[in-house]
Amino acid sequence: MSKPATPVAPPLKDELDIVIPTIRNLDFLEMWRPFFEPYHLIIVQDGDPSKIIKVPEGFDYELYNRNDINRILGPKASCISFKDSACRCFGFLVSKKKYIFTIDDDCFVAKDPSGKEINALAQHIQNLLSPSTPLFFNTLYDPFREGADFVRGYPFSMREGVPTAVSHGLWLNIPDYDAPTQLVKPRERNTRYVDAVLTIPKGTLFPMCGMNLAFNRELIGPAMYFGLMGDGQPIGRYDDMWAGWCTKVITDHLGLGVKTGLPYIWHSKASNPFVNLKKEYKGIYWQEDIIPFFQSVTLPKECTTVQKCYIELSKLVMEKLGPIDPYFQKLADAMVTWIDAWDELNSPQSAPAAADGKDGSSSKKK
Amino acid sequence: MSKPATPVAPPLKDELDIVIPTIRNLDFLEMWRPFFEPYHLIIVQDGDPSKIIKVPEGFDYELYNRNDINRILGPKASCISFKDSACRCFGFLVSKKKYIFTIDDDCFVAKDPSGKEINALAQHIQNLLSPSTPLFFNTLYDPFREGADFVRGYPFSMREGVPTAVSHGLWLNIPDYDAPTQLVKPRERNTRYVDAVLTIPKGTLFPMCGMNLAFNRELIGPAMYFGLMGDGQPIGRYDDMWAGWCTKVITDHLGLGVKTGLPYIWHSKASNPFVNLKKEYKGIYWQEDIIPFFQSVTLPKECTTVQKCYIELSKLVMEKLGPIDPYFQKLADAMVTWIDAWDELNSPQSAPAAADGKDGSSSKKK
Repeated sequence: MSKPATPVAPPLKDELDIVIPTIRNLDFLEMWRPFFEPYHLIIVQDGDPSKIIKVPEGFDYELYNRNDINRILGPKASCISFKDSACRCFGFLVSKKKYIFTIDDDCFVAKDPSGKEINALAQHIQNLLSPSTPLFFNTLYDPFREGADFVRGYPFSMREGVPTAVSHGLWLNIPDYDAPTQLVKPRERNTRYVDAVLTIPKGTLFPMCGMNLAFNRELIGPAMYFGLMGDGQPIGRYDDMWAGWCTKVITDHLGLGVKTGLPYIWHSKASNPFVNLKKEYKGIYWQEDIIPFFQSVTLPKECTTVQKCYIELSKLVMEKLGPIDPYFQKLADAMVTWIDAWDELNSPQSAPAAADGKDGSSSKKK
Repeated sequence: MSKPATPVAPPLKDELDIVIPTIRNLDFLEMWRPFFEPYHLIIVQDGDPSKIIKVPEGFDYELYNRNDINRILGPKASCISFKDSACRCFGFLVSKKKYIFTIDDDCFVAKDPSGKEINALAQHIQNLLSPSTPLFFNTLYDPFREGADFVRGYPFSMREGVPTAVSHGLWLNIPDYDAPTQLVKPRERNTRYVDAVLTIPKGTLFPMCGMNLAFNRELIGPAMYFGLMGDGQPIGRYDDMWAGWCTKVITDHLGLGVKTGLPYIWHSKASNPFVNLKKEYKGIYWQEDIIPFFQSVTLPKECTTVQKCYIELSKLVMEKLGPIDPYFQKLADAMVTWIDAWDELNSPQSAPAAADGKDGSSSKKK
């Protein structure tokens, strides 16, 4: 076998941003270097903006702290959470790329059962670039994987699938449990490597975790709003859940797909269950109403874009969830502000302005 | 570690029948001996009733050929297919047990990635005895497996789950493909062991394969009718699909669960794709209408038993699918006949009569 004359270019190198919310030095990137170095990073610094976040040499990145967010968004910055990883969605807003991969800074490279290091990003890209099959369940999982196909009885008219909007990856070691489960099972670790990717069927909601997540920003970006969490809010740790419920309802409406399963990352450290319980307890209570609400939402057929769907959803949140707690009225307003901000930064004319905004803290390697 | 004084009894030994449709000697049972020998077998002999089917020594079984079926059911025998593995549902009818496991005679014991032989029956029993979660998707798959649980964001009110009616197992080696896919990919083998069991969400249909299937007969038995296939019918190889569509619509309506995934069996031999194409081609065409039909079915809330649901479904089949082809009118009638036969053989008084019917061909080991 002869070597190829030029190395194969990393897939989607110029079409994908990696978004990382953080409050600390990004030493975790060292482990990801072989996989992430060719890509551009958008780092969203949470908490004290005067703190200096160190990024390992050689990475191409831009970094935004709270001062940057306030400067770029002005009054609309109120929709971006503070002191909560929900701030990551600011990175989705300022990206100009077609695809986003977002990962937490306590997530490391996992190994598959053969001991090989898993290139999580490559698997996400594969998931996003192949269709989803939300209309009928395929018992051999993703029919577009090598060695698999649609099984007997799968309607041929549905085999083209639909475009994939979201790829939801999983976690080995520390599972993504809520505080009560953490408290009850402090020693449980996820050691089961399930070698599957599957489409979450149309009409089915799922708990979307933001730790290891990729999506097609052009198809679904405006729905990837992580809500109001953390500082000044009555709730935390429901940012990704909120985005997941909204996203699933909208992908279902627009005929797009959501996949879950591979790739795994290695989740290194359990967060403090007592702190989590304080953040979560209202969410645990409220979700008993929120989920039936999202299960019953139907969007009118006039909603043909993600923005239109999201604005419609904000009205329904105001109307149906508003009576539960004033928080949901504030959240419904923030959903509208988010779409305003999205449209401002992502209209065809606004591209240079947004780029200006980044200058203060951007740093380039190459 | 000391040995237990008495061996542990096989689970559900007196509550489960293994149903096997066949046209040949059952040598394949040798490989299953360690797992199946404690259980009772119901063998449904298809084709020429004068042929002698040899069953390996030591198995406890009863065997029915076409003459037995005609004698036991009289005119109602018309609902049981001939020269097609759809005849297996006769075994479901005459069983008096709570659980059924049905398997094809070209299915052997598979090995897990560690090389250990898989006790498929034990895994099915585990699937059936633990709840399903059809109302919300759990990203770490079956939350009732050891080492797994519900993830963050899973509503607590839904964690009790619902009773499991069906456990659908998969196949290593020869995948369950339709004739066109067999023709296009003659050498494709399923080598991917996916270590997962998952609930098929409410509202989602799936292609149920009868090769490696278990169910709770008390919960869903009357819906496990495998239709009219084979001799004298315009279609074959859609028997299990038909049962799967009907079953899923009814389990969804009644608040029951369907699981798929583990256990794997080793499917030894691909059937002839040219023969299969002849059997399937009408089904391939018709399923484009059948599946939207089943996706749109809603059963009235008065349908509180499987029988009531099934009779209602037969009416809808007559009304909505009847116009496609006279075959569906015949099938709708057969669905009613099946329920009549079920009720006749399974009413509290009828138990002795049914046992009478078995005598001619029943053989007991112990």
